Amino acid sequence: MLALHLDGKIELKEVPQSLPGPGEVLIRVNLAGICGTDLEVLRGYHDFRGILGHEFVGVVAGPPDNPRLGRRVVGEINVACGRCDLCLQGLGRHCRERGVLGLKGKDGAFAHYLALPEANLHEVAPGVDDAAAVFTEPLAAALGVLQVAPPDHGDRVLVVGDGCLGLLISWVLALQGLEVHLAGHHPENLNLARPYGVLPFLEKDLPPGDYSMVVEASGAPGGLDLALARVRPRGLVVLKSTYLGAFPLDPARVVVPEVLLGGSRCGPFPPALRLLERGWVDPRPLISHTLPLVRGLEALELAGGPGVLKVLLDCGAEET
Amino acid sequence: MLALHLDGKIELKEVPQSLPGPGEVLIRVNLAGICGTDLEVLRGYHDFRGILGHEFVGVVAGPPDNPRLGRRVVGEINVACGRCDLCLQGLGRHCRERGVLGLKGKDGAFAHYLALPEANLHEVAPGVDDAAAVFTEPLAAALGVLQVAPPDHGDRVLVVGDGCLGLLISWVLALQGLEVHLAGHHPENLNLARPYGVLPFLEKDLPPGDYSMVVEASGAPGGLDLALARVRPRGLVVLKSTYLGAFPLDPARVVVPEVLLGGSRCGPFPPALRLLERGWVDPRPLISHTLPLVRGLEALELAGGPGVLKVLLDCGAEET
Repeated sequence: MLALHLDGKIELKEVPQSLPGPGEVLIRVNLAGICGTDLEVLRGYHDFRGILGHEFVGVVAGPPDNPRLGRRVVGEINVACGRCDLCLQGLGRHCRERGVLGLKGKDGAFAHYLALPEANLHEVAPGVDDAAAVFTEPLAAALGVLQVAPPDHGDRVLVVGDGCLGLLISWVLALQGLEVHLAGHHPENLNLARPYGVLPFLEKDLPPGDYSMVVEASGAPGGLDLALARVRPRGLVVLKSTYLGAFPLDPARVVVPEVLLGGSRCGPFPPALRLLERGWVDPRPLISHTLPLVRGLEALELAGGPGVLKVLLDCGAEET
Repeated sequence: MLALHLDGKIELKEVPQSLPGPGEVLIRVNLAGICGTDLEVLRGYHDFRGILGHEFVGVVAGPPDNPRLGRRVVGEINVACGRCDLCLQGLGRHCRERGVLGLKGKDGAFAHYLALPEANLHEVAPGVDDAAAVFTEPLAAALGVLQVAPPDHGDRVLVVGDGCLGLLISWVLALQGLEVHLAGHHPENLNLARPYGVLPFLEKDLPPGDYSMVVEASGAPGGLDLALARVRPRGLVVLKSTYLGAFPLDPARVVVPEVLLGGSRCGPFPPALRLLERGWVDPRPLISHTLPLVRGLEALELAGGPGVLKVLLDCGAEET
């Protein structure tokens, strides 16, 4: 099958079709989304060899006796052992032996087929089309912000970063009834926040004052700098960005104002699917481009462009 | 009066006696403690001009009609305006206009006299001698660790740093019934943790495994590095150390394991005083040296020595 395969360098090439292991299901990928983390992996953010891609929607294609055969599914990306101390404490997404779809020890979604444990799958309701369902993973990650600490409803919150993840987070926080400000650099992206009641600002035009919570989703060290400058004493900074490199953290910026910094990587799929099904979140305006898998290298190039939001790969196009 | 006065350089010199402002009380200082933060200020950690020192026990010396005249007191170090939004939200220790005793806009305790608002004072019970009461402020700061997030009683916790603050924190956590490990470099300091049931380790001999909570009180960037290496996924790191310089924070070390980093500076005085009064914490074994104020410069030198714990200044010695 055709796949975007990374082994030192990224290549579009024919590879043997992924085979489901015990407890796993074969999925024919319909659409896959390119994420900022994929681009960081290409820059060497961490060591991964295999098929890239962790955002997808597809159809169960095997084994033939699987009760979900032919159904549309999305899938959680952490493949847990189910036996280690963290799995037994309900922290499967932090399993000590985990694989991560398209990121760590597990071939990913930029291909015609992928294999995932049945336990990782969630069915997609008929009313949610593929172009919306492919956002389930990043929308779940946006909801993960709410798992760090209870949001403070008494005050304004700030989201830093007008990429896909920043926009999804701003929407989800607005759905909590919070007053949400979104800071970014791209007016056309910032405008996508308005239908949810989010107030968008160019970073340089942010109003004065501090925020009880700041979510850093800019994907660059400057985002954490802004977050620490704007968070209220005893407030919360949620970090969503991973990038190659380090932020020079002056400990006094955390200790003196007694702020809380919480890392957040993933989030819960079921509420993300409910938000899509009920139409409370419609991520389709975030799609910048959709290209067939055969143009995967071009899609990766496009995804790295300034202000570009989601680039999707149509992985089924040549198969149907 | 004699004072350790900082103005670019530190000097022991005669200065005009501090005068209490409106709502303030004059305090004759009995004992004052030298803190790691004082030494960082001398190294240029932040800009302060005035009399250094924020840990003290003393006697109310005026105004003459003050109902506490002659009583022994300790004092909270943040001088709040009482009017700003943070004060009105009960966050007086983060007051936007605050002074901080001996650290920011407010002359401190390394002198015969200091002035503080009456609202900052707490009386010391007769059974608590000066050598114990002078530890009220750092003991309160140790209790502040528990205000960051509820401790996870199911697991082991680690305190990094075998200085005064690290030891006080390890004792306070042990009093919560937690299994506490203390990591440091000085066997004679580490041994002071044993009477509280804390398990002390040289840093290189720490047992394997991770911790649900790690408190970083080492006063050096290596402490945060160790904390991030040893905290469990979704665990808590409490930062107590402020030091000149920056820690190169790879955001993936916070985002991928979804850990929480909480800054903690101060803490509550009333429970600290209760622990001293009931004898559940006896900090007096932490005293390395006690010198009269007239030998203040020598005391500051001593306090910076490797493995030295608390150095006290006897500020009343020449007055009585």
